[in-house]
Amino acid sequence: MKKIPVSILGATGSVGQKFIQLLSNHPYFVIESLVASERSAGKKFGDAVNWILPVPLPSEIASLVIKKTQETLSSKILFSGLDSSIAGEVEEFYANKGHIIISNSKNHRFDEFVPLLIPEVNHEHLELIRYQNYGGGAIITNPNCSTIGLAMSLKPIIDNFGLSDVNVVTMQALSGAGYPGVSSLDILDNVIPFISGEEEKLETEPKKIFGKYSEGKIEFSDLRISAQCNRVAVMDGHLETVQVKLKNNVCHGDIIEVWKNFSGLPQKLNLPSAPKQPIYYFTEDNFPQPRIHRNIENGMAVSIGRLRKCNIFDFKFSILSHNTVRGAAGGSILCAELLLEKEYMNAF
Amino acid sequence: MKKIPVSILGATGSVGQKFIQLLSNHPYFVIESLVASERSAGKKFGDAVNWILPVPLPSEIASLVIKKTQETLSSKILFSGLDSSIAGEVEEFYANKGHIIISNSKNHRFDEFVPLLIPEVNHEHLELIRYQNYGGGAIITNPNCSTIGLAMSLKPIIDNFGLSDVNVVTMQALSGAGYPGVSSLDILDNVIPFISGEEEKLETEPKKIFGKYSEGKIEFSDLRISAQCNRVAVMDGHLETVQVKLKNNVCHGDIIEVWKNFSGLPQKLNLPSAPKQPIYYFTEDNFPQPRIHRNIENGMAVSIGRLRKCNIFDFKFSILSHNTVRGAAGGSILCAELLLEKEYMNAF
Amino acid sequence: MKKIPVSILGATGSVGQKFIQLLSNHPYFVIESLVASERSAGKKFGDAVNWILPVPLPSEIASLVIKKTQETLSSKILFSGLDSSIAGEVEEFYANKGHIIISNSKNHRFDEFVPLLIPEVNHEHLELIRYQNYGGGAIITNPNCSTIGLAMSLKPIIDNFGLSDVNVVTMQALSGAGYPGVSSLDILDNVIPFISGEEEKLETEPKKIFGKYSEGKIEFSDLRISAQCNRVAVMDGHLETVQVKLKNNVCHGDIIEVWKNFSGLPQKLNLPSAPKQPIYYFTEDNFPQPRIHRNIENGMAVSIGRLRKCNIFDFKFSILSHNTVRGAAGGSILCAELLLEKEYMNAF
Amino acid sequence: MKKIPVSILGATGSVGQKFIQLLSNHPYFVIESLVASERSAGKKFGDAVNWILPVPLPSEIASLVIKKTQETLSSKILFSGLDSSIAGEVEEFYANKGHIIISNSKNHRFDEFVPLLIPEVNHEHLELIRYQNYGGGAIITNPNCSTIGLAMSLKPIIDNFGLSDVNVVTMQALSGAGYPGVSSLDILDNVIPFISGEEEKLETEPKKIFGKYSEGKIEFSDLRISAQCNRVAVMDGHLETVQVKLKNNVCHGDIIEVWKNFSGLPQKLNLPSAPKQPIYYFTEDNFPQPRIHRNIENGMAVSIGRLRKCNIFDFKFSILSHNTVRGAAGGSILCAELLLEKEYMNAF
Repeated sequence: MKKIPVSILGATGSVGQKFIQLLSNHPYFVIESLVASERSAGKKFGDAVNWILPVPLPSEIASLVIKKTQETLSSKILFSGLDSSIAGEVEEFYANKGHIIISNSKNHRFDEFVPLLIPEVNHEHLELIRYQNYGGGAIITNPNCSTIGLAMSLKPIIDNFGLSDVNVVTMQALSGAGYPGVSSLDILDNVIPFISGEEEKLETEPKKIFGKYSEGKIEFSDLRISAQCNRVAVMDGHLETVQVKLKNNVCHGDIIEVWKNFSGLPQKLNLPSAPKQPIYYFTEDNFPQPRIHRNIENGMAVSIGRLRKCNIFDFKFSILSHNTVRGAAGGSILCAELLLEKEYMNAF
Repeated sequence: MKKIPVSILGATGSVGQKFIQLLSNHPYFVIESLVASERSAGKKFGDAVNWILPVPLPSEIASLVIKKTQETLSSKILFSGLDSSIAGEVEEFYANKGHIIISNSKNHRFDEFVPLLIPEVNHEHLELIRYQNYGGGAIITNPNCSTIGLAMSLKPIIDNFGLSDVNVVTMQALSGAGYPGVSSLDILDNVIPFISGEEEKLETEPKKIFGKYSEGKIEFSDLRISAQCNRVAVMDGHLETVQVKLKNNVCHGDIIEVWKNFSGLPQKLNLPSAPKQPIYYFTEDNFPQPRIHRNIENGMAVSIGRLRKCNIFDFKFSILSHNTVRGAAGGSILCAELLLEKEYMNAF
Repeated sequence: MKKIPVSILGATGSVGQKFIQLLSNHPYFVIESLVASERSAGKKFGDAVNWILPVPLPSEIASLVIKKTQETLSSKILFSGLDSSIAGEVEEFYANKGHIIISNSKNHRFDEFVPLLIPEVNHEHLELIRYQNYGGGAIITNPNCSTIGLAMSLKPIIDNFGLSDVNVVTMQALSGAGYPGVSSLDILDNVIPFISGEEEKLETEPKKIFGKYSEGKIEFSDLRISAQCNRVAVMDGHLETVQVKLKNNVCHGDIIEVWKNFSGLPQKLNLPSAPKQPIYYFTEDNFPQPRIHRNIENGMAVSIGRLRKCNIFDFKFSILSHNTVRGAAGGSILCAELLLEKEYMNAF
Repeated sequence: MKKIPVSILGATGSVGQKFIQLLSNHPYFVIESLVASERSAGKKFGDAVNWILPVPLPSEIASLVIKKTQETLSSKILFSGLDSSIAGEVEEFYANKGHIIISNSKNHRFDEFVPLLIPEVNHEHLELIRYQNYGGGAIITNPNCSTIGLAMSLKPIIDNFGLSDVNVVTMQALSGAGYPGVSSLDILDNVIPFISGEEEKLETEPKKIFGKYSEGKIEFSDLRISAQCNRVAVMDGHLETVQVKLKNNVCHGDIIEVWKNFSGLPQKLNLPSAPKQPIYYFTEDNFPQPRIHRNIENGMAVSIGRLRKCNIFDFKFSILSHNTVRGAAGGSILCAELLLEKEYMNAF
């Protein structure tokens, strides 16, 4: 099979770099163009980037000359790690030129016909793109990094037992803030009890993700969600304490069972970036932990632990997922893999 | 006024060291004896202790010879920073010898006639000690370090608006685990979503603290509490996200008002360790933070921020208090100051 | 005594903030004006600053309206925490207007008639300012933060035993890079073996500091110095391993003796910011440490430990000093105190 | 090829765990027995161990029943991660039973006929074991974790230009202290300028490693070495600043050349754990860094950067190597691979 060329918008940023890492040696895709701001455009990528990942920058990528935003691109699929300050406009520009953009930015997440996609959770929402008016192009969005792990842990609960309330408190990693992001002076020996805009995303995105799709429309879920977000001195991996109120009576073991058995379309299609087992449940008292569990299944699985009865809600538990892999670049690549398999590509 | 001699049980431990720091130059008290385990007894304190505080060990303390547990002590008041594995027995031993013990250990917290005391919150519970059967001695306990800040933030809410539900998620400092406590290999670039026994304490202690006292009896509060506890890479200062369901309708400004105006008996009596203002409310989005706010009022005040409406409960907010000062040694010393002022000493 | 008004150039930066903290309640000085860049000028300081210190911003300072660079100032003495990109020009501008500037920037450190001053080490260099041509104004500079602690530790060695070679490796704190400075993504679980320009400063500044002053000239020292600088995940306090080759034969105890007995003009004059004891020697194997010793004498003393024979040089040891207090704002204030006492003020 | 059974002494410790990780799926070796102290013996490994590595414990290892020290073992090769308090005696016991022990403990490193082995540096020292008197058994030792990276960086310099003096200052990772090792209260926001016994090892081990072997004798090198060791808040990877005085005049580029071209017997024999390229030189100002470079070549290579002229020595530079892989378990496994290839096995 000949590899499909793809391009990366916002290639020098932290999400952009993660895209490059994950697309190196990808069985379906090969990087064709890298796009970044005026400041970097025209330079070789290796000269322009402040490469922050603990793996070497591939030399064939280092020698690519960076294109500038809105320059013509030939690959159909574009992965976007653009900053939200410009992502809205640039992504529309390329969609109108006929490209399919898979974006990590918040800008288009709540557009009527834009899927907010987690392949294991709501693959049927991908149908929405048939209703977009970009003349052959399309925009697909990834949810926020803290939403993805949460939604995956809730999916089997919703499907099997029904869910009415979700209360979540996050302890989020530094890489979620991009680079340079959080100053070391603000976080060493400290926790910051605030992340701008994050609680709103966690409280609204799951309503769309868990919405019912029918003929180009999503009926939003009536799930009640409250979120509180904190930044902690962790490199990668968002830890979240979760409390749930269910619609049906279930016991402790029932929930663990549906988590362990959870599997979605990506697993069925055996997509290359899909985790073999999307959810891991740990029985150790002090698991999951960011440093120990973030890289399970190459960072694409969600780790859960500490399921127990709650005095106020029905149950409480802790979840952990890798914010820049499952929660950003890896999640987007999985969306693209799904797109290919579902043969949407032909339709565009 | 001649200073009153006091002794410290468990003097070499982390709470014991904090007692020494806070009692140096105390206007009421002077350290008479230091008590520790067999391993240290008989040595000079300066030789036996692994002093971990960032202030010098006073030389007159360094030269004190450590007494062994159950050795005869002449000071009436004993502060206990003993480990819970031995605190139960040792504290009873000394109470039976006629001493008043102010303890940070969990062992006697739920004894029928033992007050679980926060001077600003439930000073009237101190009356309980008149019902103890220690023949002149008594045991008074400090709540758990994560309970104290929470209870102080809830007290004016309960008094003014009534409270039915409390949901709390903690991000607790390393010093709460004692020394050596948490291994650096377990916490660097990590969060541990579990602290043994901590959630149970947070879910039960406030029920006694907010219980109604009447003639030697405490009628426990029916407050519904759920707690989830995490350990983070912070030296001192427990940060807690709190959600509350009130009994009466109030607006945002009402709550801030009662926090700002909150004042208790220690403030009225102008006790030396009492914070002038027990609660600070910050309007900055990203406050309170452990490193910035833990030392306000010498670590004896509680800092609060981010009060906002909640989709599930009525309100949510974040609190911060110093776990080894307000939450341990400083809180105990304030109890002792109250004891003196209320002239309980004469009764014993 | 009426307090002398002073102003702060670069008041919103990290050194500027430290000046504000240290000048609050200063016995000689009172802050008159705060100067910052266009972006902040005209705003109240409390609104413009991102206050990062763990002590409250004094309200009388918060309400000061920030002046813009090159605006007329009425106080004679100006403390400068300006960035080196503009410090050169701005400091000259104010010197020409008749102000005495005490600067932390590198720009004028090697000007022929500008003293590079550490009051305990080379107070006689202050005479240089009489030779400056600023028409009543003058510029005095503070050495680099990592130089000051080193120079203080070497001064009694040079005076007593002679010194030919100094080899130093630093592990420097984050606050030395200003705010936001080092990204948390660059330093968590990491060390950076490079600080731009730092090694050059450490290798050249001591030659001027230890130079012989005579009639408006400094004959630079021929000390041979090699420096290697690293950034570590420490908030405040530069730790340095030092190796020295002496001109005379001495024993271990001799060196400790001259350190313990070291005292300079600031101690003799009893200047308010002068440490009572400028150098502390610790006999513990694992001392000094940044977190434990940086605040000794309010951050104005140097802590030393681990003096031992060296296989290549004569001796090796470790030193620790507070980089933003002794190494920046505190050091500058001590220079100003010396200036007053020496009655240079009258001459200008 | 049938895999060769090996056993691990001290299997539950941090080095023991690293052995297990690195020996899983090893092409030559398969783990047969795990040996640990009385406390763990008789239990299944999965129940006895506090597994701290961020990769899952293989289930076939988890179910092995731990043997007790001095229990009979059937595998010829034993890897030892024993604590030095017992390693001396236990390793001798097993050597006398005919086993070949490859040890990370210091106890036998300076025994006359025990090689202190780094396969790329002094493979010819392996001949020494023919002179041991263990009746078919033998002891081979790995140098200290901070010595190995240093020795590898010096080897091509010694061979090509001659070396007289080495000055080294280390910033060592937490995993070097074992588990639980360094308390988080001692290292957060801190550096500890002391590691017990470490400087002595760094100053003496290279003299044996670089000694000339001839007929069962090693003539120690007369290299002059001075070391200063610090502990920093880094999980894995020892960073070292190094200064060297050479016997011959060379230029900057010559040294980089010999580093880049450095290759040893393990590379020639294509041993499975041998790095393809043992030394990486980086031209970036701020490289090497522990978090970024420790895992190059699966943690078996040494990263070097910042080579520059020195005012006192000839050159200075910074090196980085993974302390528990190259510096412990990985280094030992490479020794065992060499042992097999050199067909020493037949001789025993």
